[in-house]
Amino acid sequence: MHSVGIAGASGYTGGELLRLLLRHPEVEVACATSRRHAGKVLHSVHPHLRGISELRFEGELGALEECDIVFCATPHGVSMELVPQLLEVGLRVIDLSGDFRLEPEVYERYYRRVHTARGLKGTYGLPELHREEVRHARLVANPGCYPTAIILALAPLLSQKVVEDFVVADAKSGISGAGAEPKKSTHFPEAEESVLAYRITSHQHLPEIEQELRRYAPGLKLSFVPHLVPVIRGLSSTHHCWLRQELGEEELLSIYRRFYAGEPFVRVLELGEVPRLSAVRGTNYIDIGGFGVDAERRRLVVVSAIDNLGKGAAGQAVQNMNIMLGLDERTGLELIALHP
Amino acid sequence: MHSVGIAGASGYTGGELLRLLLRHPEVEVACATSRRHAGKVLHSVHPHLRGISELRFEGELGALEECDIVFCATPHGVSMELVPQLLEVGLRVIDLSGDFRLEPEVYERYYRRVHTARGLKGTYGLPELHREEVRHARLVANPGCYPTAIILALAPLLSQKVVEDFVVADAKSGISGAGAEPKKSTHFPEAEESVLAYRITSHQHLPEIEQELRRYAPGLKLSFVPHLVPVIRGLSSTHHCWLRQELGEEELLSIYRRFYAGEPFVRVLELGEVPRLSAVRGTNYIDIGGFGVDAERRRLVVVSAIDNLGKGAAGQAVQNMNIMLGLDERTGLELIALHP
Amino acid sequence: MHSVGIAGASGYTGGELLRLLLRHPEVEVACATSRRHAGKVLHSVHPHLRGISELRFEGELGALEECDIVFCATPHGVSMELVPQLLEVGLRVIDLSGDFRLEPEVYERYYRRVHTARGLKGTYGLPELHREEVRHARLVANPGCYPTAIILALAPLLSQKVVEDFVVADAKSGISGAGAEPKKSTHFPEAEESVLAYRITSHQHLPEIEQELRRYAPGLKLSFVPHLVPVIRGLSSTHHCWLRQELGEEELLSIYRRFYAGEPFVRVLELGEVPRLSAVRGTNYIDIGGFGVDAERRRLVVVSAIDNLGKGAAGQAVQNMNIMLGLDERTGLELIALHP
Amino acid sequence: MHSVGIAGASGYTGGELLRLLLRHPEVEVACATSRRHAGKVLHSVHPHLRGISELRFEGELGALEECDIVFCATPHGVSMELVPQLLEVGLRVIDLSGDFRLEPEVYERYYRRVHTARGLKGTYGLPELHREEVRHARLVANPGCYPTAIILALAPLLSQKVVEDFVVADAKSGISGAGAEPKKSTHFPEAEESVLAYRITSHQHLPEIEQELRRYAPGLKLSFVPHLVPVIRGLSSTHHCWLRQELGEEELLSIYRRFYAGEPFVRVLELGEVPRLSAVRGTNYIDIGGFGVDAERRRLVVVSAIDNLGKGAAGQAVQNMNIMLGLDERTGLELIALHP
Repeated sequence: MHSVGIAGASGYTGGELLRLLLRHPEVEVACATSRRHAGKVLHSVHPHLRGISELRFEGELGALEECDIVFCATPHGVSMELVPQLLEVGLRVIDLSGDFRLEPEVYERYYRRVHTARGLKGTYGLPELHREEVRHARLVANPGCYPTAIILALAPLLSQKVVEDFVVADAKSGISGAGAEPKKSTHFPEAEESVLAYRITSHQHLPEIEQELRRYAPGLKLSFVPHLVPVIRGLSSTHHCWLRQELGEEELLSIYRRFYAGEPFVRVLELGEVPRLSAVRGTNYIDIGGFGVDAERRRLVVVSAIDNLGKGAAGQAVQNMNIMLGLDERTGLELIALHP
Repeated sequence: MHSVGIAGASGYTGGELLRLLLRHPEVEVACATSRRHAGKVLHSVHPHLRGISELRFEGELGALEECDIVFCATPHGVSMELVPQLLEVGLRVIDLSGDFRLEPEVYERYYRRVHTARGLKGTYGLPELHREEVRHARLVANPGCYPTAIILALAPLLSQKVVEDFVVADAKSGISGAGAEPKKSTHFPEAEESVLAYRITSHQHLPEIEQELRRYAPGLKLSFVPHLVPVIRGLSSTHHCWLRQELGEEELLSIYRRFYAGEPFVRVLELGEVPRLSAVRGTNYIDIGGFGVDAERRRLVVVSAIDNLGKGAAGQAVQNMNIMLGLDERTGLELIALHP
Repeated sequence: MHSVGIAGASGYTGGELLRLLLRHPEVEVACATSRRHAGKVLHSVHPHLRGISELRFEGELGALEECDIVFCATPHGVSMELVPQLLEVGLRVIDLSGDFRLEPEVYERYYRRVHTARGLKGTYGLPELHREEVRHARLVANPGCYPTAIILALAPLLSQKVVEDFVVADAKSGISGAGAEPKKSTHFPEAEESVLAYRITSHQHLPEIEQELRRYAPGLKLSFVPHLVPVIRGLSSTHHCWLRQELGEEELLSIYRRFYAGEPFVRVLELGEVPRLSAVRGTNYIDIGGFGVDAERRRLVVVSAIDNLGKGAAGQAVQNMNIMLGLDERTGLELIALHP
Repeated sequence: MHSVGIAGASGYTGGELLRLLLRHPEVEVACATSRRHAGKVLHSVHPHLRGISELRFEGELGALEECDIVFCATPHGVSMELVPQLLEVGLRVIDLSGDFRLEPEVYERYYRRVHTARGLKGTYGLPELHREEVRHARLVANPGCYPTAIILALAPLLSQKVVEDFVVADAKSGISGAGAEPKKSTHFPEAEESVLAYRITSHQHLPEIEQELRRYAPGLKLSFVPHLVPVIRGLSSTHHCWLRQELGEEELLSIYRRFYAGEPFVRVLELGEVPRLSAVRGTNYIDIGGFGVDAERRRLVVVSAIDNLGKGAAGQAVQNMNIMLGLDERTGLELIALHP
């Protein structure tokens, strides 16, 4: 049994990490911290944990030092302060914030804050593209939810050089992605019966997506717009491209099947099938489908879907942990989605 | 390993049974039938099973005969024809329809159809009240969703004779309870932003609730009204009573704690806490709380919540199966709820 | 043209008052105040007013003095301070808070604050029961949303003395009723897919309901429990009673038809029809229906539905204004509901 | 008073037409037909019309002949049969189906049916682009919901030749757009908590959009993908383009302000403001905003929002009627949106 800790465990990502880790057969949750809720039993904040665990939130970080591995579910800016301390005492860290995903200069522009741990860069924890680096990493920067859905949807295609550089990722996210803190845009009467585009040209996930995809398409001209839709969990992204050369839908499909052969958490759908949020709800799967080629207009469409708290956050973090610990990557993640 | 079959596996209850049984460590799903979808792979109907199972729907019932135990997730009226055949070839059966829960005369009045297997009565599969009978049953009649939430919420109270006979169960159900077949009342533009009382005086679950509760309170005057609310999964029931004698909230709580001591799937909440659907979503738990005593008006309130497809249907059926097979009752049901 | 003002116009009730009054043919909105948003154009807060009005929020109350009539959409506690000042300068006032609906002693118990204007009691602005008093009132206390739906549903029945004193009003409200201020219980991921009973024995609308209904049934033993359901607008209440004597559904219906004959905003449905939120959405109607008599159990059910911001707040306030100004009661309120 | 009729009045578009026309000061609804509901009072199908009108559905079309103008809210394929008959008896017609919007060859490809009235082409009823033609038209082809939101959002931009030919319209529609007939994809448990891309390369609105926009940009390479989101009413479309030349956000805004100067139903938002569905709910407005220029990537984004049953169907049809009858275009359409 490995001992794990969670820093900043009171948010939705913390709650989802606990849901997964408390049933993981190879690890034990030794510590979950929250300054605000210190001393309270976990289920006073996370109602789904009632009867599952009687653990209490720790207010101090000291307790984390006994762990083998620590998840930082702390907000942007906080991780930056915390992670160096944890690494210093010899811990391995999976950070779920955006603090260690980008070059510091880019980070500072998009997150609008000074980076105080500039020397430190995480291994980008997208196992399908960086599995070997993750295996040996001391610090994994767990990808953002939008980047996960978009990079995995576009990488196979861009790696084949079959589409123009003009690419659109139009993404729709459930509102749990905005965190557990109430605000105007997440107030039920505002968010229900609503579709809201936000940070239209400036979302902090844009450079994260480009950083990965430009390895395949250096000239990529990506237009990424995120939207909030009235859904609790789930993130769907529709990708629009134009073909440089003829390509049939069967060929398109086989590009994806080859690229993700053997991947335990990528499901490439049949032609004619479109990813659905209920098929990934509560799981670590990414479904890729909706493959469409409009030969007349030389356009091509691909759709992906994840659970923003699953493959988009906590699920992927556990997948990274499994790799780091040398476990079967699927351990503790073999949940079946909650449909309907 | 025990071999199990599911008859009528293409509906929501069938899908939930499959979600639970395909991950159950002590059973193997040998057969799932659906006349309409015969030959199709399960995940063509149940998108959450993609990548989980390559089993196909059987069109014929013959395949069920090889099983140790069969779940009938068939509609009212169909079970009546099917169950006697299955029993005859020596199978043990858990029927999720209403066909074997009531005395035939009552059944015929409330279901408005002739009962064609009048000699046959199932053991009422509410383990918290009938565990021993279930253990040895050949035919278990799995309770309805409303009855589960209401009987378990009221039994402790009625058994203590502390309240008047005038009792209200005002219940709100998620729309998956209406089944997978589209109809006007479940059409999204009609069901969203809506609260709909239905079968106000004549719901078929009323006599089922009374049958159990009159064992505690023969003079019970129950008013049960079901409502559809814009929720996929989850059923919440609010129970209004009036006190015959003084009773404090602490005493009220302790009645419930005593009654359900040791029960693995009943969570009695603290005073001041109200059951929430997200805390039971995807699980077999029933949460009971919202304990309120209004001394001035001598009124008393108790609230319960379940997942209508979980403890209200498939979860409870698996719990019954575990008991029938002599397994630990929690096997395969130790899922944590999907919150948020 | 009459000149009207709105104090505290930045909340949902203020927004709805503006929606109605800006299209009212007999009045002109002269002033809308909001300390927080002083100087901003209305549609910066109320997006539905873009292109409709270029009025700006006033920060000071002085501007209200020029009006003929003032709506106070201020919170409980604020109205108490404001209303006496407005009355003193000769204005007529419709107050939408709870401050002037109850006897001060009762108010202080349920609102948990000291009443600082104890001498002042409003005319209870439920036109169907108090039309004549409203006509001449200087201060109208506009009813709460739950009381409106419940009192109008039960008054005809209780006035006939045909039911027992044990009466339940189980009410489900849309979340706009909780106001425009974000909080945990109205955060989308918490409120969606949820049904939440709250203030189970202590809601401040309970004594308001009793105050009116005890005029018909002095011994009334009312159990009122409010719930939040995932709906923006709309409030539905189910009323459970038991008969003292035999009563058929036709007779029940005719009690209601007689009681509300000629009422412009009460729609008594046919037998077999149940009120739906979409039929009252955006309007000042109350629909009463779902009439059920279960002769075997001597129980009786009646269901009502309103728009909590319409008949439950702003619509009724405008109806009261029309009466106070001697206008046709329907003026400016002849909107058709938004279905679906 | 002008006399109007509605053919096929039992669907959602029919219900919305009735909501608007029954309160229109210059017309009288003389006739509403529905074969299926012949003889029933309108509010038995349209619950929002209870107490508003006692009109009954006509089963025969003959009654339409007495009208001055007829709305055909009949499905694709039915209009094709009906409209020629109505024109022949001298009526003016506004057809809300897709039957008369396209060249017959294009129609047959995208609607997959033979066109039986090939000689007949409607005037495309987008008043902002075709007001003069509408004024004198005998047959107006009322635009589709997606085309309305997309054409009006892109026309100003494309008319200026400032963007590349690669253009994306990623649209999200409320589910009332799918009509009143229940089906699998609109069944509440499937549609709630879901985002569903559909007809990804083949939606019938694609050629309709191109037909208008190619007048401005003959080389347009449009990628249009429609999605269903869990919303009753409302349609939001996000448009992604790339700049051919430098263009600031202020300039972008002024292109739109100039293009739509004086238009009563187009609201061009300020920079920094994003269209919201609640601001157009129940109205005939289109809001255009979310103007973003990402100079680094030379990309440009514009977002539009309409009520799919308002400006996307019935509202626009009434606007067309007003023009055809020589009335003020805003008559009967001065409703304020239902926010929240």
